[in-house]
Amino acid sequence: VAILKLEPLTKAAFAPFGDVIEMQGSDWFPINNGSTQRFHHLGKVQVFGDDGQAGISLARGDAFAFPIRIRMLERHPRGSQAWIPFDQTPFVAVVAPNGANDKPDETGLRAFYVQGIQGVNYHAGTWHHPLMSLDKQGDFIVVDRIGVAPNCDECDLEQTYIVDGTSVNPQGQLS
Amino acid sequence: VAILKLEPLTKAAFAPFGDVIEMQGSDWFPINNGSTQRFHHLGKVQVFGDDGQAGISLARGDAFAFPIRIRMLERHPRGSQAWIPFDQTPFVAVVAPNGANDKPDETGLRAFYVQGIQGVNYHAGTWHHPLMSLDKQGDFIVVDRIGVAPNCDECDLEQTYIVDGTSVNPQGQLS
Repeated sequence: VAILKLEPLTKAAFAPFGDVIEMQGSDWFPINNGSTQRFHHLGKVQVFGDDGQAGISLARGDAFAFPIRIRMLERHPRGSQAWIPFDQTPFVAVVAPNGANDKPDETGLRAFYVQGIQGVNYHAGTWHHPLMSLDKQGDFIVVDRIGVAPNCDECDLEQTYIVDGTSVNPQGQLS
Repeated sequence: VAILKLEPLTKAAFAPFGDVIEMQGSDWFPINNGSTQRFHHLGKVQVFGDDGQAGISLARGDAFAFPIRIRMLERHPRGSQAWIPFDQTPFVAVVAPNGANDKPDETGLRAFYVQGIQGVNYHAGTWHHPLMSLDKQGDFIVVDRIGVAPNCDECDLEQTYIVDGTSVNPQGQLS
């Protein structure tokens, strides 16, 4: 097994994989006669194929605790998929670039600590691990493609990776 | 002025205006090898016109307090618009059917109390009041159409309506 270090989630670090949906560091403009700040278009919704459309779902994810073992990834080739906590639950986003063999490039595997006030929007085709709420059951808003064409590839990794969370302190902040 | 009674938000009551996004009373199925419950497709994202696409934004809304005066409504003819609290802030959704004169039918004006664990998705063209977070500033996830074509009509009402909130107790629950 190999240790996978947990990293802070930033727009720059995550850019190859998707969008970070957060207010911090994002531009806004006033709407509703000034009573509302709009942080505009933080996540781009991708829907490919004639049979699909974007939809809003909710999801309730089991609690995961460190050390977390990573053995597989999945991807959705026909659309983006956003995960935004509905109840401030932090989670772990594990992603990888695509390799020359059309499988995850494990040399580029990354693990991000997603704060409860952040969300992620995986771009279409981004290899990622299924939802891993941290320490407690978490509720999430999901925005993704609804359609009948197959839209989920799964791939077992060549080896097991462990996110041990030692870079996160007991308050859940990256240390 | 006229008093507008606050009603509980239910899928049935809100159906003519849009979707209620909530887990309570919604069906789910297991995903991610059983570790996640998916409450599938609670909100339908509508995007009309060739120049538009769905996008995810965030919004921070000023606090409103009862009595709330309602003087105008707006609508987005080219797409749906979802408002889902990011931080459990309740809000008030005021809506109206369209009238024969293509203005809000004020005889059908409704005010709904949206719990912090609920969201709404206004269907394209639904007359609604801009965001009104209750009692505190609120952060919201917005899913709507991003595009260049005009997509917001505003209309002043014939009279002022007051949502006095007397049907809500001090704990924010409908009494």
